[in-house]
Amino acid sequence: MKILNSSRCFNGEQRFYQHDSAVIGLPMKFGVYLPPQALAGDACPALFYLAGLTCTEETFPIKAHAQAIAAELGVILISPDTSPRGDEAAKADYWDLGQGAGFYVDATQAPWTPHYRMESYLCHELYYVIKDHFNLNKISMMGHSMGGHGALTLALRYPELFASVSAIAPIAAPMDCPWGVKAFTNYLGEDQSKWAEHDASRLIAAKGKLFDNILVDQGLEDQFLNQLHPDRFEAACASVGQPLTLRRHAGYDHGYYFIQSVIADHVRYHTQALL
Amino acid sequence: MKILNSSRCFNGEQRFYQHDSAVIGLPMKFGVYLPPQALAGDACPALFYLAGLTCTEETFPIKAHAQAIAAELGVILISPDTSPRGDEAAKADYWDLGQGAGFYVDATQAPWTPHYRMESYLCHELYYVIKDHFNLNKISMMGHSMGGHGALTLALRYPELFASVSAIAPIAAPMDCPWGVKAFTNYLGEDQSKWAEHDASRLIAAKGKLFDNILVDQGLEDQFLNQLHPDRFEAACASVGQPLTLRRHAGYDHGYYFIQSVIADHVRYHTQALL
Repeated sequence: MKILNSSRCFNGEQRFYQHDSAVIGLPMKFGVYLPPQALAGDACPALFYLAGLTCTEETFPIKAHAQAIAAELGVILISPDTSPRGDEAAKADYWDLGQGAGFYVDATQAPWTPHYRMESYLCHELYYVIKDHFNLNKISMMGHSMGGHGALTLALRYPELFASVSAIAPIAAPMDCPWGVKAFTNYLGEDQSKWAEHDASRLIAAKGKLFDNILVDQGLEDQFLNQLHPDRFEAACASVGQPLTLRRHAGYDHGYYFIQSVIADHVRYHTQALL
Repeated sequence: MKILNSSRCFNGEQRFYQHDSAVIGLPMKFGVYLPPQALAGDACPALFYLAGLTCTEETFPIKAHAQAIAAELGVILISPDTSPRGDEAAKADYWDLGQGAGFYVDATQAPWTPHYRMESYLCHELYYVIKDHFNLNKISMMGHSMGGHGALTLALRYPELFASVSAIAPIAAPMDCPWGVKAFTNYLGEDQSKWAEHDASRLIAAKGKLFDNILVDQGLEDQFLNQLHPDRFEAACASVGQPLTLRRHAGYDHGYYFIQSVIADHVRYHTQALL
């Protein structure tokens, strides 16, 4: 695990690391923002942010504008990459499949099987790398779009790992949208019972209440709203008594100008849940 | 003047415009952040931000994290591009000359002469486009690196246009650094007396006090510190009694993680000067 770059930021450090991932079988990069409290040696809460289609570990640190509030509240921010990189046998000529589009599942289908294992990478490897390397008290999870799907599904599949979960414009019922059908067909095969294990709306309906609350923000001018289905996630949560704060924001679209407008609320939300 | 894109952001709008510039002779793009106060029809102060080498009109809105404080204080943010685009006769195979590197001067040398007129574009055209199109009370100026050079020199050359000026890691004595010598030689020719008219340190020494104060922030781990010469600008200001607040920040480098750490101070500074 080596530091590729470190820049002082709000009296903390925005760092980028690379490590050889045993789960992925390739080098993986991730970003870490260490607030001044962490640099001073204090135990801090950590918040994973899973990014959306086409993003990398740099997208969140550059575009989401989260470091100011993280410095104020003393929160460590972890930004993983969105897929393996450099797998020559598994290149897709699509922006919504393959590199930048790992969908936070472990692929069971060729040619993706050997390296596309983002679920295991995050929950069985990077989680513990972070936990061992930094002085943490608790770990929480959030994400945007494909990463909102990742945040919700991984938190619902591993509720023992994450103190709280939130999402911005998540793909909340991926079995019911073109992005999800394409990714699940390619990574998981034709058996839709396997898909349901990675669909936030089906998961919460099957598992019941797992968290005291879940926070989701959704822009009403989101150009991909027909891919996201927040209503189905809302109905699934209601059906099993899972408390959900789903905030619908008039005028906001799918991009990072929306994310930067609500990111401080998410960091605060997890800080309250975490401390 | 057409809107290319508009995204809601902190209850304001981050917009991108394109217009046919008469001065440049090519289409030019620029960003405008309108805070909620501007959308409500209030007269607001406007702050130009001139960006550095390789940047575009999108760099500041994405990377500088200024919209939150602009929304809070009611400041319009203007982010011009850093050069003409699409001038096929004047392409340079350098990242520090030509596209993305206009240096905020009017070129007098071939092949740059017909289009590379960023000084006139900003001060004789875009300034008035903005003033006519939005409801402003005053206009101020800031910039980073090459754009810090642009902000200082244009404010010193046109003090009647700008209520206040600040810079982050500016190229403060371009005649004394490789970037400046290369740009001035190519754009302005060999006559160094012409260069001095576009060198912030020479300008302030020649003109004397022009502003109540100037704010400059400089990181002490800046990888380009040998190109910037804040000490020479400081000495020149002192020699003529121009008040200067030059803040030296231990640990910070040249990039946008530094800029985001101090941008709120700059927006506040100009708001105080502007209102």
